[in-house]
Amino acid sequence: MTAIKGIAFDMYGTLYDVHSVAARCDGFFPGRGKDISALWRQKNLEYTWLRTLMEEYVPFEALTEDALVFACNALKLPLDDDTRAQLCDAYLKLEPHPEVPAALAELQSMGLPLAILSNGSVQSIRSVVSHSGLEKRFTHLLSADSVKVYKPHRKVYELGENELGFDRSEILFVSSNSWDASGAHQFGYRVCWVNRSGNVFEELGQVPDQVVASIDALPGYIKAHNAG
Amino acid sequence: MTAIKGIAFDMYGTLYDVHSVAARCDGFFPGRGKDISALWRQKNLEYTWLRTLMEEYVPFEALTEDALVFACNALKLPLDDDTRAQLCDAYLKLEPHPEVPAALAELQSMGLPLAILSNGSVQSIRSVVSHSGLEKRFTHLLSADSVKVYKPHRKVYELGENELGFDRSEILFVSSNSWDASGAHQFGYRVCWVNRSGNVFEELGQVPDQVVASIDALPGYIKAHNAG
Repeated sequence: MTAIKGIAFDMYGTLYDVHSVAARCDGFFPGRGKDISALWRQKNLEYTWLRTLMEEYVPFEALTEDALVFACNALKLPLDDDTRAQLCDAYLKLEPHPEVPAALAELQSMGLPLAILSNGSVQSIRSVVSHSGLEKRFTHLLSADSVKVYKPHRKVYELGENELGFDRSEILFVSSNSWDASGAHQFGYRVCWVNRSGNVFEELGQVPDQVVASIDALPGYIKAHNAG
Repeated sequence: MTAIKGIAFDMYGTLYDVHSVAARCDGFFPGRGKDISALWRQKNLEYTWLRTLMEEYVPFEALTEDALVFACNALKLPLDDDTRAQLCDAYLKLEPHPEVPAALAELQSMGLPLAILSNGSVQSIRSVVSHSGLEKRFTHLLSADSVKVYKPHRKVYELGENELGFDRSEILFVSSNSWDASGAHQFGYRVCWVNRSGNVFEELGQVPDQVVASIDALPGYIKAHNAG
């Protein structure tokens, strides 16, 4: 059995809670924070897929802003420039899921190189990671921006293999987004799906190699796998 | 001003009501028809985008079935093989929106070639069109299946230009799906967005040339445009 030699993490939703912006939304639009946050995230994903299909790359931060504008228009909520800027800024200061800091420290102590492989720009990834004080945990911060397409395009997944320097089968790709886990698995990574909320895996012809309820299950999984 | 010489219609949602399957769903799952129908349609779209990005073409009918399986799993509704087959069959017998038959007859009487340009397979398009008795209205039934990618990939839009034989700027592309209208407009078609429900247009960097509330507004729009 191939040993796991490194880990590539999705960032948004997997290590960091995208719905941590809901409270911020709720401050501007009382009672509507969850609705805005959910539609904003859904449209942000759709716009990454659609812009890639349209072969018209737009930086992730601009798509995030476009998605917020759509969400507020669709929900008939007035969005002024200052509110828009403050809410987009919240995406640069996402909170990590509670178990993440300790779990990353343990994984690092096992000698595994840890990468982030994200749709976000390098600037966004750096901002999120440093805001949470976790910059020393990661050996690589890899952005789709360097290939100008978004996941699940294979060019994004190739970044992890190329930069970590292991064969894709030796890299554990970790994502809470099951469409992303599907794309990574099709590409050839070993894949762990983080299913925090009892969600259903997407029907995209792929199944993850492992499912965990949170990141703190990873050290034990990897030790057992590599010992097997 | 360039005259409109032909029309390419999106099929699902534009000419035919995809939520006409909701009643059928409700028959099997009382009280849940709308929920199933909405999530089914959303996932069906997502799977066309994601499979295209994954460069793994799967026929539309199979994606429709995958999306139904996901929707029922996510809603915790048991889906047996017979129910699945009957619900997927409903997608072959969609009802046209009420104004469509008369509007198509009028457009045809104006001498305009009318095409369907759809993600559905040729077999699905034929089934839907003939079930509604509208097969004599169309000069072309064009399917994404012939290029093995889905909208908004430009290869699908190219089919309309190639088969109708006019320049893209002389073809009116009509869709109720604003992401599709955006892709077609970026490609270079003249685009009419059919906005039946007061929806908000997607923020994909495009704006439609015309917006109508239903298909019966098209003959008047084209006459005025071509006279201008």
